[in-house]
Amino acid sequence: MNVIWHNGRFIPAEQSSILPADRGFLLGDGVFDTMAAQDGMPVDAPAHQARLIRHAAVLGISLPAMDDWHDIVCELLARNRSTTGAAIIRTTLTRGPGGRGLALPEKETSPTLLITAELFDPESYTPPATAIIAQTVRRNEGSPLSRIKSLNYGDNVLAQREAQEAGADIALMTNNAGYVCGAANGNLFIAENGRLYTPPLSDGVLDGIVRARIMTQHAVSEESLSPARLFKADALWVTNSLIGVRPVAAVDGRAFPVKMLSCA
Amino acid sequence: MNVIWHNGRFIPAEQSSILPADRGFLLGDGVFDTMAAQDGMPVDAPAHQARLIRHAAVLGISLPAMDDWHDIVCELLARNRSTTGAAIIRTTLTRGPGGRGLALPEKETSPTLLITAELFDPESYTPPATAIIAQTVRRNEGSPLSRIKSLNYGDNVLAQREAQEAGADIALMTNNAGYVCGAANGNLFIAENGRLYTPPLSDGVLDGIVRARIMTQHAVSEESLSPARLFKADALWVTNSLIGVRPVAAVDGRAFPVKMLSCA
Repeated sequence: MNVIWHNGRFIPAEQSSILPADRGFLLGDGVFDTMAAQDGMPVDAPAHQARLIRHAAVLGISLPAMDDWHDIVCELLARNRSTTGAAIIRTTLTRGPGGRGLALPEKETSPTLLITAELFDPESYTPPATAIIAQTVRRNEGSPLSRIKSLNYGDNVLAQREAQEAGADIALMTNNAGYVCGAANGNLFIAENGRLYTPPLSDGVLDGIVRARIMTQHAVSEESLSPARLFKADALWVTNSLIGVRPVAAVDGRAFPVKMLSCA
Repeated sequence: MNVIWHNGRFIPAEQSSILPADRGFLLGDGVFDTMAAQDGMPVDAPAHQARLIRHAAVLGISLPAMDDWHDIVCELLARNRSTTGAAIIRTTLTRGPGGRGLALPEKETSPTLLITAELFDPESYTPPATAIIAQTVRRNEGSPLSRIKSLNYGDNVLAQREAQEAGADIALMTNNAGYVCGAANGNLFIAENGRLYTPPLSDGVLDGIVRARIMTQHAVSEESLSPARLFKADALWVTNSLIGVRPVAAVDGRAFPVKMLSCA
């Protein structure tokens, strides 16, 4: 696939470019969303659009009018000949090119808005996952960015690298208080004595869309989860918008029963 | 100024572009350096180059050969007609365009290396600064990224915005343990009973070049600094490569005597 949508135009990806002065590139001053598409249609688009607006507001970035976001995504999928099967839609929004330094530019900037589509093989993500608890990096529960999909994903990249090096599929991350807050690429649920638990957003947890949906469909308690408690869980799952719900079969070599957790 | 150096070529900034698939743009997967230049010559270039290599290694990114970095910077300044007065050199290095998702691409990527020069008026930064202690965001002492100049500067942007909104020049930041670790744009030193103190890197402190230089020129103890202790200090300074040493005249409205701290 190689057509992308960039600030109002469909263009070949290789002709598209981000200016070197874009604050998203220079400073991580932006947000993004990752959404699944199936057979040419985005999945749960209104929830994703609402979240993108909410997350952009945390940075004080105004999302350009996106009344037609759903239509743009459908056309993007069509132009990329991806109207059958699964695809991934990534929407990236930055504050746009701005003056030097951290300070917000005095003049209103012109945001950069970019939408890409890529083929996706969900099969490769559905087997039960092996996980590690990352030791080299923690999530920053003291930052609003830990709760949103900002462009500052460097900590997650480091955690995922640690998982790759350990031969595991995914990295669970702890915060500075030592509590497990989720996976580098999604949210975490555990079952304990027939009840479901997930860590609260205040622990440095991403405001996940599948997380929210599961919480409306099941009785889930939000509680901080120590690694010791996690290791005694009856079952674990990670969730995100691409894979939905994925069972975790092992953490740091300790095996867990693979159970189902439904999400309609 | 509008000529930049991008992966081996001097080109007009508006003709330069970052690919939308660049991991620096998508995930903050990169590092940068900011260096002063005076009258066409970079200041302390060997220290900056060594640090850029060191910081890139934290992410596992290999810096392309830069034997001629000093020459490139000088030529960049000349091409931008900035051989008199002060300028800022920013070098940005990313892992380059890579596959989708957090995982490091299986194939070696081709890093993006970008050098820009901008005019700089040091006068506007030399008056004693007013500061706040940011309340909305903390530094992540549990991440190696808090000690390097990675592209993940979103927390710093949030802190600086808080300072701007409060009418202050700079934002001091605390970590999740509640200790002050520095300014959003530099390092912190305090004087207390005739001695100098600065927080240790392990508190989530940027590995600053001026910080290191001051520590070789003065007797400085590395100690964690609580806000309560900071408010009792005899004097405070923030440091970075552009301003050198800047006295802090007030924090959250509490005045401090303006004293000098030398750095040769």
